[in-house]
Amino acid sequence: MKTTDIATALAGKYPEWIVFVVTCDATGRVDLMPAGWCMVCSGEPPMLAVALGLGRHTRTVVEATGEFQIAFAGEGQREVVDFAGRCSGREVDKIAALGLRLSPGAATRVPLVEGCARSFECRLAGSLPSGDHVIYVGEILAAHVADPPVRNLVNFGGWYGPARAEE
Amino acid sequence: MKTTDIATALAGKYPEWIVFVVTCDATGRVDLMPAGWCMVCSGEPPMLAVALGLGRHTRTVVEATGEFQIAFAGEGQREVVDFAGRCSGREVDKIAALGLRLSPGAATRVPLVEGCARSFECRLAGSLPSGDHVIYVGEILAAHVADPPVRNLVNFGGWYGPARAEE
Repeated sequence: MKTTDIATALAGKYPEWIVFVVTCDATGRVDLMPAGWCMVCSGEPPMLAVALGLGRHTRTVVEATGEFQIAFAGEGQREVVDFAGRCSGREVDKIAALGLRLSPGAATRVPLVEGCARSFECRLAGSLPSGDHVIYVGEILAAHVADPPVRNLVNFGGWYGPARAEE
Repeated sequence: MKTTDIATALAGKYPEWIVFVVTCDATGRVDLMPAGWCMVCSGEPPMLAVALGLGRHTRTVVEATGEFQIAFAGEGQREVVDFAGRCSGREVDKIAALGLRLSPGAATRVPLVEGCARSFECRLAGSLPSGDHVIYVGEILAAHVADPPVRNLVNFGGWYGPARAEE
């Protein structure tokens, strides 16, 4: 192996998940942001962890409400990922701007977003500062999948698409 | 979307990374375990997070030494992933059993393992219990890539292979 700079080595990390962190603030306003730094972190109970940048509006809502949803982007949502990543829920009503259809969640106040491949309603279970992000751990309370099924949109390093294994 | 049980929805999470958490204990004994629950969690400084099961030997060594390495499995390492995941470093010298070649790290006592696609030497920066796992955050101190390059081995749900984007 050869030593290289960290950024170069990290550039080969892909494929990486693309999820939306969906929130609903105290006034009922729904927002979503795309995130790539997300993983399962417990089997029993089932839990997901996601790292959110220090400046993110979503962080404020997660901490205030104690709940969030991790929704895997569906293959038809490239535009949603790009738009939702370019602006902040502080200034823009992304749900309205994108014309996203919502339906009620089963276990939290956070609604489901049509077009996502799968959604996990989470209750905040812990957090850990890590550099310029904070890791939030959510216990999964309820899960939903697209019907009919939709493939996950996956990040290949600036290029998004469904993934398939190669020989 | 339709509500489903959590395990069914999580079964569609793939592709997922396959990394080795490589450790070196106080006596110099090197061990590695495969892990799938790993993500970047900071850009500046660069950091990685990995979730390790409560009963894992690797956890003991990470906590005792304060350092570990996250090495992305290379496409030729299916057998290493399977074997290293089936036994514990408590009982088995996996490095010897698998005949793995090691070379010195640049920033930690943890050596590099030939055949991996890319390796990140980390210093333990924090931890957070999460259900039946503990999340460990490592600040990346040095990075290495296979030379010549090797593709990452990716988990497609029990089936491993390099990933490619599909239209």
